[in-house]
Amino acid sequence: MTTTNSVFIATSLDGYIADRHGGIDWLHATPNPNGSDLGYGVFMSGSDALVMGRNTFETVCGFDGPWPYEQPVFVLSNRLLQIPPEYADKAKLVQGPLPEVLAQLHRLGHRSLYIDGGRTIQAFLREDLIDELIVTRLPILLGGGIPLFGDLPEHLDWTHVSTRVWLDALVQSHYRRVRKGVPRVC
Amino acid sequence: MTTTNSVFIATSLDGYIADRHGGIDWLHATPNPNGSDLGYGVFMSGSDALVMGRNTFETVCGFDGPWPYEQPVFVLSNRLLQIPPEYADKAKLVQGPLPEVLAQLHRLGHRSLYIDGGRTIQAFLREDLIDELIVTRLPILLGGGIPLFGDLPEHLDWTHVSTRVWLDALVQSHYRRVRKGVPRVC
Repeated sequence: MTTTNSVFIATSLDGYIADRHGGIDWLHATPNPNGSDLGYGVFMSGSDALVMGRNTFETVCGFDGPWPYEQPVFVLSNRLLQIPPEYADKAKLVQGPLPEVLAQLHRLGHRSLYIDGGRTIQAFLREDLIDELIVTRLPILLGGGIPLFGDLPEHLDWTHVSTRVWLDALVQSHYRRVRKGVPRVC
Repeated sequence: MTTTNSVFIATSLDGYIADRHGGIDWLHATPNPNGSDLGYGVFMSGSDALVMGRNTFETVCGFDGPWPYEQPVFVLSNRLLQIPPEYADKAKLVQGPLPEVLAQLHRLGHRSLYIDGGRTIQAFLREDLIDELIVTRLPILLGGGIPLFGDLPEHLDWTHVSTRVWLDALVQSHYRRVRKGVPRVC
């Protein structure tokens, strides 16, 4: 059965997911009078589970309001010793090499995974484990901050699936990974 | 009279204009059976002159075939002592602070400037001297190389003008700089 690891994320034109001070206010600077979710709902409805790093998990824990995910969340961290008890029914800690983590989630029946958080996405990309990339570019240059992409051992080619402009400002492009003749193992 | 400094450039999804070895083969990897110029001709027809750095100038000098520009080229360099004699009718050396260079080109009647080359674009952006940004994203992650964007002293906001997908693969977005209430001086 097919498995898919997907990224759905917003960046500045210069590829940052947070500014130099970790700030993400600029993500909400575009007027959005009808409260469009920019395709997030449709994307989420196709996801079985989330995989995120400790930083993203702690950021989400700090949000006001109810827990934002219906799907199970797996927190990928070798530093976190346990999920705080108040989140124990929402998130589970996973550790170890990514192919093993993925095999574990697939065994649990989670086949369409939403991979979130800068470091986690970079770790997956370094091992060529991302299949789908949906990047929404906001019309701002931050000039520094936390980058979405990092170093890679080799070039990764993608197929352009579609591009849509939201709110007359945000350019969302959907890419699918092209792996020439080499089936992915895990 | 209005003056405009424009960028028209292609990057990888992770924002590089050349790979780790300075290579740009990936720029030509997308099948282009009808030889589309990806909007370059229309863009160039609106440009009075080019401003580029030494690196870009030397790269262009190394291309096979005839000199590619009809417009005058100004090479911005504090290291180059003179333009090689064989290019003396094609390019001129300009030096000094960017606002002075711009004033000089405006006095010569060049008001719509095509700013090219990574370092030159970064230098213009650091002084908030780019008005128009046309970036074409190719569906590849290079994972390292020469970045288009660099550090900035402050965030720069843009208006999205239009986005067009070329060859079912290349996402070209056109942005215009928004300067709130502060007219640009030079």
